Amino acid sequence: MQPKSLKVSHKDQNIPSIGIKKQIRDLLDRYLYVRKRTEELIKPLEPEDLCIQGMADASPPKWHLAHTTWFFETFLLKPHSNDYKVANPKWSFLFNSYYDSIGDRHPRSQRSLLTRPGIDKILFWRKSVDKEVKHLLINLKGNDNEILYLVELGIQHEKQHQELLLMDLLDGFSRQPLEVKYLENSKNQNPVYQDNLPIIEQSIQWIKCKGGLVEIGANQNQDFLEKKPFNFDNESPSHLVWLQPFELCTQLVTNKQYLEFIQDKGYQRSEFWMSEGWTIKEERNWKAPRYWKKQTVSTTWNWEFTLKGIQPIEPLNPVRHISWFEADAYARWANARLPTEAEWEVAAKTASNKISQMHSELWQWTSSPYRPYPGFKLASGAIGEYNGKFMSSQFVLRGSSYLTPSNHGTNTYRNFFHPASRWIAAGIRLAR
Amino acid sequence: MQPKSLKVSHKDQNIPSIGIKKQIRDLLDRYLYVRKRTEELIKPLEPEDLCIQGMADASPPKWHLAHTTWFFETFLLKPHSNDYKVANPKWSFLFNSYYDSIGDRHPRSQRSLLTRPGIDKILFWRKSVDKEVKHLLINLKGNDNEILYLVELGIQHEKQHQELLLMDLLDGFSRQPLEVKYLENSKNQNPVYQDNLPIIEQSIQWIKCKGGLVEIGANQNQDFLEKKPFNFDNESPSHLVWLQPFELCTQLVTNKQYLEFIQDKGYQRSEFWMSEGWTIKEERNWKAPRYWKKQTVSTTWNWEFTLKGIQPIEPLNPVRHISWFEADAYARWANARLPTEAEWEVAAKTASNKISQMHSELWQWTSSPYRPYPGFKLASGAIGEYNGKFMSSQFVLRGSSYLTPSNHGTNTYRNFFHPASRWIAAGIRLAR
Amino acid sequence: MQPKSLKVSHKDQNIPSIGIKKQIRDLLDRYLYVRKRTEELIKPLEPEDLCIQGMADASPPKWHLAHTTWFFETFLLKPHSNDYKVANPKWSFLFNSYYDSIGDRHPRSQRSLLTRPGIDKILFWRKSVDKEVKHLLINLKGNDNEILYLVELGIQHEKQHQELLLMDLLDGFSRQPLEVKYLENSKNQNPVYQDNLPIIEQSIQWIKCKGGLVEIGANQNQDFLEKKPFNFDNESPSHLVWLQPFELCTQLVTNKQYLEFIQDKGYQRSEFWMSEGWTIKEERNWKAPRYWKKQTVSTTWNWEFTLKGIQPIEPLNPVRHISWFEADAYARWANARLPTEAEWEVAAKTASNKISQMHSELWQWTSSPYRPYPGFKLASGAIGEYNGKFMSSQFVLRGSSYLTPSNHGTNTYRNFFHPASRWIAAGIRLAR
Amino acid sequence: MQPKSLKVSHKDQNIPSIGIKKQIRDLLDRYLYVRKRTEELIKPLEPEDLCIQGMADASPPKWHLAHTTWFFETFLLKPHSNDYKVANPKWSFLFNSYYDSIGDRHPRSQRSLLTRPGIDKILFWRKSVDKEVKHLLINLKGNDNEILYLVELGIQHEKQHQELLLMDLLDGFSRQPLEVKYLENSKNQNPVYQDNLPIIEQSIQWIKCKGGLVEIGANQNQDFLEKKPFNFDNESPSHLVWLQPFELCTQLVTNKQYLEFIQDKGYQRSEFWMSEGWTIKEERNWKAPRYWKKQTVSTTWNWEFTLKGIQPIEPLNPVRHISWFEADAYARWANARLPTEAEWEVAAKTASNKISQMHSELWQWTSSPYRPYPGFKLASGAIGEYNGKFMSSQFVLRGSSYLTPSNHGTNTYRNFFHPASRWIAAGIRLAR
Repeated sequence: MQPKSLKVSHKDQNIPSIGIKKQIRDLLDRYLYVRKRTEELIKPLEPEDLCIQGMADASPPKWHLAHTTWFFETFLLKPHSNDYKVANPKWSFLFNSYYDSIGDRHPRSQRSLLTRPGIDKILFWRKSVDKEVKHLLINLKGNDNEILYLVELGIQHEKQHQELLLMDLLDGFSRQPLEVKYLENSKNQNPVYQDNLPIIEQSIQWIKCKGGLVEIGANQNQDFLEKKPFNFDNESPSHLVWLQPFELCTQLVTNKQYLEFIQDKGYQRSEFWMSEGWTIKEERNWKAPRYWKKQTVSTTWNWEFTLKGIQPIEPLNPVRHISWFEADAYARWANARLPTEAEWEVAAKTASNKISQMHSELWQWTSSPYRPYPGFKLASGAIGEYNGKFMSSQFVLRGSSYLTPSNHGTNTYRNFFHPASRWIAAGIRLAR
Repeated sequence: MQPKSLKVSHKDQNIPSIGIKKQIRDLLDRYLYVRKRTEELIKPLEPEDLCIQGMADASPPKWHLAHTTWFFETFLLKPHSNDYKVANPKWSFLFNSYYDSIGDRHPRSQRSLLTRPGIDKILFWRKSVDKEVKHLLINLKGNDNEILYLVELGIQHEKQHQELLLMDLLDGFSRQPLEVKYLENSKNQNPVYQDNLPIIEQSIQWIKCKGGLVEIGANQNQDFLEKKPFNFDNESPSHLVWLQPFELCTQLVTNKQYLEFIQDKGYQRSEFWMSEGWTIKEERNWKAPRYWKKQTVSTTWNWEFTLKGIQPIEPLNPVRHISWFEADAYARWANARLPTEAEWEVAAKTASNKISQMHSELWQWTSSPYRPYPGFKLASGAIGEYNGKFMSSQFVLRGSSYLTPSNHGTNTYRNFFHPASRWIAAGIRLAR
Repeated sequence: MQPKSLKVSHKDQNIPSIGIKKQIRDLLDRYLYVRKRTEELIKPLEPEDLCIQGMADASPPKWHLAHTTWFFETFLLKPHSNDYKVANPKWSFLFNSYYDSIGDRHPRSQRSLLTRPGIDKILFWRKSVDKEVKHLLINLKGNDNEILYLVELGIQHEKQHQELLLMDLLDGFSRQPLEVKYLENSKNQNPVYQDNLPIIEQSIQWIKCKGGLVEIGANQNQDFLEKKPFNFDNESPSHLVWLQPFELCTQLVTNKQYLEFIQDKGYQRSEFWMSEGWTIKEERNWKAPRYWKKQTVSTTWNWEFTLKGIQPIEPLNPVRHISWFEADAYARWANARLPTEAEWEVAAKTASNKISQMHSELWQWTSSPYRPYPGFKLASGAIGEYNGKFMSSQFVLRGSSYLTPSNHGTNTYRNFFHPASRWIAAGIRLAR
Repeated sequence: MQPKSLKVSHKDQNIPSIGIKKQIRDLLDRYLYVRKRTEELIKPLEPEDLCIQGMADASPPKWHLAHTTWFFETFLLKPHSNDYKVANPKWSFLFNSYYDSIGDRHPRSQRSLLTRPGIDKILFWRKSVDKEVKHLLINLKGNDNEILYLVELGIQHEKQHQELLLMDLLDGFSRQPLEVKYLENSKNQNPVYQDNLPIIEQSIQWIKCKGGLVEIGANQNQDFLEKKPFNFDNESPSHLVWLQPFELCTQLVTNKQYLEFIQDKGYQRSEFWMSEGWTIKEERNWKAPRYWKKQTVSTTWNWEFTLKGIQPIEPLNPVRHISWFEADAYARWANARLPTEAEWEVAAKTASNKISQMHSELWQWTSSPYRPYPGFKLASGAIGEYNGKFMSSQFVLRGSSYLTPSNHGTNTYRNFFHPASRWIAAGIRLAR
């Protein structure tokens, strides 16, 4: 299940080989693998990097390590593990991200101030929680679906934070005057991520989709351990949608194509932009994708800041780290539009052999605001806050990216961000 | 065509009674009526009120009078009336609302600084433009559809600003420590608006709608003078939508019902709120609808600020002047939801005899983000900026309100505002 | 006493000619003159101008008319006039400027929202208060020093607001895209102010002052009606100061001299600037005095906005409407410094025949922070808030300006503003 | 010269014992001692603490270590050491604090983002610079006064940053929800600072000073190595001041006395406060000194956050960490005032045996705005920016504090901060 590239042993010798259902053993394997991978992610860092927070939207690496652990402690161990004692009651205040039902929390914008507890204490906490989760799973009497669901949800949650940790680092490092490299180029075959975006050589191709009454979404599966994949609540319920015929581009927009938009004064012509986006662009002085750089003021955009440092822009790579406003403006300039999330999903399900880069390269902005599917119900309690309370003023992205852990993105997965967000690994796929 | 209540003669004696097509004569009648009504709206004001601007979202009354005139001058007379000379080229800078294609403009938040040109100059300008428009229409050779369209668009635009003028005044007056009355209670049968919201006595009733594949929207009509009503670009194209069966409430939520939400701590329980709305509510300290007041801190909400001054809250009137975030939270508390705009429109078209208050009482927030209909195309040029560039981070409202001029709201009309806006005359209709 | 230029009769026929002490009659004459002059100041305005507020530091004209009336009502009539009934108790909330002891007040930045009470109500209030003050003075038994002092203080206070009203108007009008003229050039010999700054032809001259132990300040005079002039509390007590020998420039810095500073990159060279001033200059993009204008970006500074509209900059006029930071930077560039307030006062008292422009042209920034004189005591009660609570982070200006009412500035008068303030009629006098 | 308490050997074995003038050897000894002490200060920290920045006014510990090194590199080695090559040209951008003449710099508020260069690189840089300074001094031909002056200035500068480092840490740690202790109580006899504020048992005592024509300040001394102490430019020139007779309190205000002010509603009564201070107090919700805490909302102020963690407030300790606005308000409440800086200095010079706590306990706010002494001249070049450009909107503090390195405060030393600053170790001494 886990990718070969992570060359760390995660087989825990203490798991008894008999007496445990295979599904539970698999779940535990995946749990331990995810937990270990998060810790791998901070190995290339200097100690001072552990608390870097480039902006209020981002969180420090150490915080991600702590918050994912808090998640298991709060939602799994406290309610379901007898006699479990929390590591430190105050930590709940520090590492609660946004769950109002759980209580007050430390202000998001001040997470870089949390120099304590130190990383050694956090790593020790992680080990304790891992031990407890293992104990809970091994001793499970029968299938307690709620417990299994919470472990799975915590695994998926931690995968999401693995991507956030890398996004946030890229943002934080980009704000340093010195060039900081998370990883050396030579270590490209590293376990943590593959920054090998594809070369897109073919010219623009469109694939026709006939539309009609189609079904999208996925119902949450009580037997998710048997019948994969796991689905989040916001993907459900599956439901019918009427689509007019449409065409989808078989590839992502390249750096070269995007540069033509810039050179055609795309950032100076308001007719391509939403009014809100134009205002934000003016205020923040956007002139190119988030991480593009010029050698000097008078030259063109030649360089891009990446987790491997400053790299030349490869014209045939897909353009990345742009906001929805930029993607939407580009599409209008190109006499096209962004696909709706339903269009994207139907194409992904029915024509995946003819379309490239749907997964593992870049998230793809859709034209769909993030709203509940018809019939969507919030889960009760704090878990209901997971996805449901963000359903205003955000847009849906589909697919997955070069920063996404493997096996995370699915065709029904709904990622969502504010339309001005640029630090996500997002690109553009056109429709018309 | 014009409502009887406005007891001013608008029949212009100088319009020749023969030689003009009836449709054009009707158009001109409506033009002159609308122009006169705008000027009626400021009659109850003190001179100092003409420049009041309570917040950046609102505009001073005088500005509305000037901007609507600028609209006809810029989009109709300059391109289509030979030898037309603009009143003052700098005024285009002052009274351009948001059209980037037209050029730079005065910052929206500083409109109260525009004490000059004085009201007499603005009224003189209005007369000159009216004269020119009349001349243009009377001398029209054949049906020049673009000219007729622009006159009609300008009329509809001015009707929209009539409502904005009243909304903005209510906001501005509400910020004064003294109680300011736009109109005395006794003058209730006044020409400008009817603040006679209905008494809703019946208990909550739901009407079942079967859904299926339905058509919504309206194509823009080249023969709008013949076949009314006029439709805006954002209502087109008409298209199919798949709806699941749903139920719609036959009446609006009342003050009494909304007060129960408040008393059940609706404003303190985050589980009902979108995360963004909760943050805004906290920052702005919302505790009740925009214009509700208490006698003292310890008493309950008894009073409401209106254009007739401070009035007792009538429990059986529909609740009004609330944001989308409040409407959405109320609906969740009530175990219901807001209707989509498609649901609203289908019900309005097919079951209008069984549903009350769809028009002329309060705008109704829908659960639909404001986005283009499939196949929507921006008009070229500045007119394309009219509706199209606001299609992010706003929500659709349907219907019309007690502040809307008569004959303005239609079943396909799409009003839109940011979800935190409270100064619009909006209420709540539930669906489930 | 009153200047001839104001061609309005202010002799009140109803003041009995006998039975009143001459000093009280004189005081009443001056009271009525000042009150009438304030009303003259708004005559050139359009009604909409009455509520203009260009920035939070400024107040609308109507507010000045109301506030000066509130001052007499609150500090004189309420405590000292039997049976006096305030015009409207809520107005105290509206027109209290900054007296915490009096109670809550309307936020300063929102004074433009106070479109009500209308100007007619304010003028009626002024008349009522005038009648009551007259009655109080005519019927005074003996010399009630406190009452006489409060009338005099109110007169001085209203003179200060006459200057503020003009300063604030200049600021507000300057923010309008159209050129607004408070007065036509041809009406230059108008009653309200003389915008005839002197032509300074001679080259820079310095006058030597020997310093030593000198006395500055003025004790507050119980017999101020007999022995003029009136002094404010912050001018007292008179006290000794040790001064080193110094030289003072006999004239103000001219526009021509200031332009040389600009052309020598004075606004781009941080070495001349206080750190705080440099930051503010960068943020607000200062490049020249507050009201200077260029024809186009590439030309030089040729024009100046004034109460008579846009006028050519006269090179030999003194430079005006600059902040302390600019005055201080200019002085450093010119190898000089600003005088201390003690130096200014000693020179004004002892060498006034050799120094020009000490009064009636421009306020002169000193190098002295505004702090209490040794032995200064706050008056008890709200009147103690008049001057005493502003003694941090401000600088003293001395003299008086072209906007100051006649007979207002004295050699001991201490004006004070924040060092970033530019809308005051301030210029530069050098010392070394 | 160096305090015995720092139990680290700083005698450098590589300094030749002969052939170097004693003064230079002493200077070098002090140089090496100061450099070592700075590094001692970070020993109790966790690695993540190295980049903590609690607010824009404060800097992270690592930044202080780097900036003090940058100071020697920039002002001493680059101009005076042949062939010196800077460690990294970009570091000048990172670690320049406020010297505009040196070039652009990294924004102050974002210093916590500078996770790179890591602490090991900074410490290596420190060693290299130390080696180079040693080499420069040992090989000095004759007395090169400018070099000696720059070394001395750099030493004094680094002492200032040692205090800033501790102040900034206290601020940063205080913002963490967990209680962070810089030092354990048991380690009280530690080398870095003595948090042993005195017990003040005697009742309030006043000492009379006769005033008259007195001399204050200190001329900068070319022979500062011989005739100590070193003086900063802002202490010069010494000059005469006329003082009226005054009385100074022989001790600082205690926690107990300050609590009486709080209990007498000192923070709710505007009559004690400067207007600017009152506004800031309201905005920031000040209710007690910066680091005071309550057990619960309803109890009184019992606890104080310190570098040793949360400690009980000792009633007889002097009150600390208050702003000028609070000190000034307290003094007015106590029917007294703050001393001028001249009064403080004269008393310190002439009556030091009768007055306590003038040094090493708490800085003492004076009533004097920070302005240049008569005849003060800025040094040319970047060094002129050291003190001179902050002479607006700040107040002078005199003495020295429990966080000040030994031998740093003198009777003429002028410390200065904005009147709203609370994180400095400041207290109150009254005058009248």
